[in-house]
Amino acid sequence: MPTVEFRPFGRRVQVDPHTEILDAARQAGVSIDAPCGGKGSCGKCIVRILEGEVDSKSLGLLSPDTVADGYVLACATRLLDGDLVLEVPEQAGRSEGKFAPEIETHLIRRELLPKQWEFDPLAVKWLLHVSQPQLEDGLSDVDRLRRAIQHDWGKQPVEFSLLGIRKVADTLRAAEGTVTATLVRHAKRLYVINIEPGDTTLRHYAVAIDVGTTTIAVQLINLAVAQIVGAGSDYNDQVACGLDVISRINYARRPDRLEELRQRVLASIHRLIRQLARNHGVDPHEISNAAISGNTVMIHLLLGLNPEYIRLAPYSPTLLEVPYFRAAEFGLDINQEAWIHFSPCVGSYVGGDITAGILCTDLATPSEDINLFIDIGTNGEIVLGNHSFLLACACSAGPAFEGGGIECGMRASTGAIEKARIDPETGLAHYSTVGGARPRGICGSGMIDLMASLLLTGWIDAAGKFNQARPCPRIIVEGRRASYVIATAEESATGQPIIITEVDLENIIRTKASIYAACALMLKQVGLGFTDLQQVYIAGGFGRFLDLENATVIGLIPDLPREKFHYIGNSSLMGSYMVVVSQEFRQRQLELAHRMTYLELNTDPAYMEQYTGALFLPHTDPGQFPSVPSRAPRH
Amino acid sequence: MPTVEFRPFGRRVQVDPHTEILDAARQAGVSIDAPCGGKGSCGKCIVRILEGEVDSKSLGLLSPDTVADGYVLACATRLLDGDLVLEVPEQAGRSEGKFAPEIETHLIRRELLPKQWEFDPLAVKWLLHVSQPQLEDGLSDVDRLRRAIQHDWGKQPVEFSLLGIRKVADTLRAAEGTVTATLVRHAKRLYVINIEPGDTTLRHYAVAIDVGTTTIAVQLINLAVAQIVGAGSDYNDQVACGLDVISRINYARRPDRLEELRQRVLASIHRLIRQLARNHGVDPHEISNAAISGNTVMIHLLLGLNPEYIRLAPYSPTLLEVPYFRAAEFGLDINQEAWIHFSPCVGSYVGGDITAGILCTDLATPSEDINLFIDIGTNGEIVLGNHSFLLACACSAGPAFEGGGIECGMRASTGAIEKARIDPETGLAHYSTVGGARPRGICGSGMIDLMASLLLTGWIDAAGKFNQARPCPRIIVEGRRASYVIATAEESATGQPIIITEVDLENIIRTKASIYAACALMLKQVGLGFTDLQQVYIAGGFGRFLDLENATVIGLIPDLPREKFHYIGNSSLMGSYMVVVSQEFRQRQLELAHRMTYLELNTDPAYMEQYTGALFLPHTDPGQFPSVPSRAPRH
Repeated sequence: MPTVEFRPFGRRVQVDPHTEILDAARQAGVSIDAPCGGKGSCGKCIVRILEGEVDSKSLGLLSPDTVADGYVLACATRLLDGDLVLEVPEQAGRSEGKFAPEIETHLIRRELLPKQWEFDPLAVKWLLHVSQPQLEDGLSDVDRLRRAIQHDWGKQPVEFSLLGIRKVADTLRAAEGTVTATLVRHAKRLYVINIEPGDTTLRHYAVAIDVGTTTIAVQLINLAVAQIVGAGSDYNDQVACGLDVISRINYARRPDRLEELRQRVLASIHRLIRQLARNHGVDPHEISNAAISGNTVMIHLLLGLNPEYIRLAPYSPTLLEVPYFRAAEFGLDINQEAWIHFSPCVGSYVGGDITAGILCTDLATPSEDINLFIDIGTNGEIVLGNHSFLLACACSAGPAFEGGGIECGMRASTGAIEKARIDPETGLAHYSTVGGARPRGICGSGMIDLMASLLLTGWIDAAGKFNQARPCPRIIVEGRRASYVIATAEESATGQPIIITEVDLENIIRTKASIYAACALMLKQVGLGFTDLQQVYIAGGFGRFLDLENATVIGLIPDLPREKFHYIGNSSLMGSYMVVVSQEFRQRQLELAHRMTYLELNTDPAYMEQYTGALFLPHTDPGQFPSVPSRAPRH
Repeated sequence: MPTVEFRPFGRRVQVDPHTEILDAARQAGVSIDAPCGGKGSCGKCIVRILEGEVDSKSLGLLSPDTVADGYVLACATRLLDGDLVLEVPEQAGRSEGKFAPEIETHLIRRELLPKQWEFDPLAVKWLLHVSQPQLEDGLSDVDRLRRAIQHDWGKQPVEFSLLGIRKVADTLRAAEGTVTATLVRHAKRLYVINIEPGDTTLRHYAVAIDVGTTTIAVQLINLAVAQIVGAGSDYNDQVACGLDVISRINYARRPDRLEELRQRVLASIHRLIRQLARNHGVDPHEISNAAISGNTVMIHLLLGLNPEYIRLAPYSPTLLEVPYFRAAEFGLDINQEAWIHFSPCVGSYVGGDITAGILCTDLATPSEDINLFIDIGTNGEIVLGNHSFLLACACSAGPAFEGGGIECGMRASTGAIEKARIDPETGLAHYSTVGGARPRGICGSGMIDLMASLLLTGWIDAAGKFNQARPCPRIIVEGRRASYVIATAEESATGQPIIITEVDLENIIRTKASIYAACALMLKQVGLGFTDLQQVYIAGGFGRFLDLENATVIGLIPDLPREKFHYIGNSSLMGSYMVVVSQEFRQRQLELAHRMTYLELNTDPAYMEQYTGALFLPHTDPGQFPSVPSRAPRH
């Protein structure tokens, strides 16, 4: 029987030939999570083959580069007859906890893509054979290049930039007229954005960029094979200038500070692009297209537009649909001629992250089902509708779930407590962290688990206050400040205990209340209730998990049959990938943006009423949460 | 009787009321040249009214600004009943002799414009009233601006640049929605290149730029009234890197030197634009359009394109028709969004200066007459044809007539000897200078006069050699070097005598021979002769004069009835003005460029034969110059 060794644990097990690696791991007592049930769709069970041969179906699920590095999905890979040594990734990305594990985001989330779509990126690379110069024909280099393009693409006008024209003469002569042109097709014209000697059609990249108030995420896409080759995320450097969009707008009041914010977000994006490019052997100037999705304020700041009028009545943004700009024009450090696609915004507080996000849902299809899309970021945005109507609204959720304003809060990156459960007997927390690293803080999904557990065990009441009448070794009161210790200083990677304070809990409750209230009011305003919903899509930066049960317990999401819920993660990034790869999605996104009606809830007095009702766990009206066990009575 | 005082001479004269100022000057013994015979077309008789009132028809002939400064044409202005004090400009421009007199170029040369044409510049300013922002309509600032534009201009797409969008929010709010948009109409789209608060439609400027190998000339045009408000010219700073296009191409072989040449020509252009803008109270950023005409090599260097392949067989340029670039794109320091029109080039050695220049001639009209256009610059370009055919060729004339390679040569700027005649008895030269200043050197028209005069007086022979057998006090021989002293060290402004050497004469003969040979061969190749020509247009930087008689005597131009000749000065600059002010001319210019066939003469063995024959004064075949007196016999 073949032997399988699991590193770094050193566990070995003898198993039958052709055993699935996931089964072998279980037999060896090695925990490899596979929350999708081994369907190859979540990507969590990724392992790396160090020695030996396997029969893997991971290709197509993982990017070719990842597979080339020896990674496979344990659930989609079987042993052959020989021994095997493999590594269970303990922690990917940087150990400082700044970057989310990259490997998981390698996965192309096929389940979010429609069944049928046509690969049709904005920028294409095209191999040309250009005739040699001749005295007789009197043609310039540019004339000859234009003729070669029109020969293949038809007699549409061909536009050149000055930077491009400067390369033409030498490029046409370097490989005897064999050149690769990068072309953008737009409004019945062809724009030549690059020209390179020889055949470079296989070196063709794009980036999808999600610009969040707190977090920036970037995907590097290989356009030659329409696959994601890598992804990364990091804090938006603007966080130093204010945690939410309103504080950013206030900060931006002086032109030098507006410019500072622009530079900060560009620096964050560039750091991620450079890192991805380096990791995958790509020169940033080989990236010839980018799609950027972000909320309306983020897009204004990225473009250097004064966002002040978004904050002042009548809340009029400078622009919602951003025209195509060149990378050089707004300072993106990729191919300087690259055209940048911005996902269209709908209103001052419903941005391109939403028009990108709903591309991943049935709200973008001809379905008659009424569906709800909730994107929980620093702002919460909600879209309700079906093929015949689409309503959108926004609420100021705050950055709690991304770690902002929470004592030990952090993003869902290495060392973040992402799952937690409190033992009702001992009061100690069982938790797991991103990358299996020692804990450094707690991220949104961990907060939700923890708050639900504290409520169900009776250590907090419905108002989120610690029940000091019931002693718990992990609840510490210093003066007027009470907190629960999730991990002790000894367990923690930072040398400080990881705690959650009563103030943190208030913060989280305000966040969940604002989202729930917005959903409830929106439905009410169109004469619908939660039970009318067929599907509820939840997007946001919670990382890989969101425990829907716990999210219901605290009243963040409505109490509906669990199968109606779909946690779709960073749908803004996924939607940005979609608009990079297909004109069909770009077109659909624009139509969705035009169809969407923006509802201003914040000026509606009924909103405050809904919000106040939601400031309890799960709600002042328990009838709205029939499946949630009645909360522990106060002692 | 009214008294007229002429300053700075201090001459006074009493004349009848309503006397023309030109007549009053003659009566006062003050010399005011009026070579056009007082028709108001040459602009030479410009004077400035310091005190008193006049009845002037100068408006329409001079720019409004010039008139506002008190300038009138003496030939188009009469006294009233009162006294008058006026100033005869002694020398305009800088006394260093670097700038040509500006006032003459103020004149709009109406005789070169067709009778009928429509004012239709590429960039227009348009006053808009944009609706105020409203919560209900959900429109962004850019949406509202677009609607206001489409309301006036129809439902064509409206394009914005990022720099423009950055100004929109504040500009729309500064004057309650009253804004002036600068629009460019192109390919059924409207491009917003500027937006300003309030009504700025009267502050709307363009520049026409002629980029010569030796000389740069710039006109500032007030687009609000379609008039030239000022003009200036200066050396092309590239002269330091080589006198002709071939030496510039050689210099540009290294990328850093190509960039140096680009910076040098830009610096020359910017100096002229800044000076003109300052003199006329214009901010360079109020200039929202430019038209640039130059030979193919100059345009390559201006755009930073490697010109090497123009010099190497098969002499293929990188581009001939330059697309519209923005000012920011190639570094022109006017409104950064301004679109730049480049006059289309025809071949490697027939450039946009020629397609601009022939716009000023009957070659651009439906006439059946066969006409010849000769542009004498550092390169000589010749166009022959009528409405049904157009042939163009080029020859390397060299910069002699612009002062290059000539011991005391200089451009036709202040202090240049522009007219000269040698007294056949005394051998002394009578001359006049640009601006009436003390002589600093000799310009092209002066060289032609001098050479013709030396020939007719017998002090040089048909080969251009000094006749040392006939003593002349002004001919000096030092070793093997013989020269003629035009102005002594005492007369000269530089403290050095102004001379012309035998080497200079050889140089000038080679220049005139290359031009005459090209004309003759071109005609021969299409089976025509000089006598088939109806009109001969001579363009070039000779300044205000070109003595056609003397030009015939030395064999620069063919010996035809003098009324067939038209000296049209800097036609490239005038043509650039025309394409700035009318779409009709831009269209016509492009059609002319497409219709023109480039003849390569330099590789034709017959060219050398023609050239050799033309290396005498006027020619080895005196039969070609029947009207020229037989040359003085050698003593």
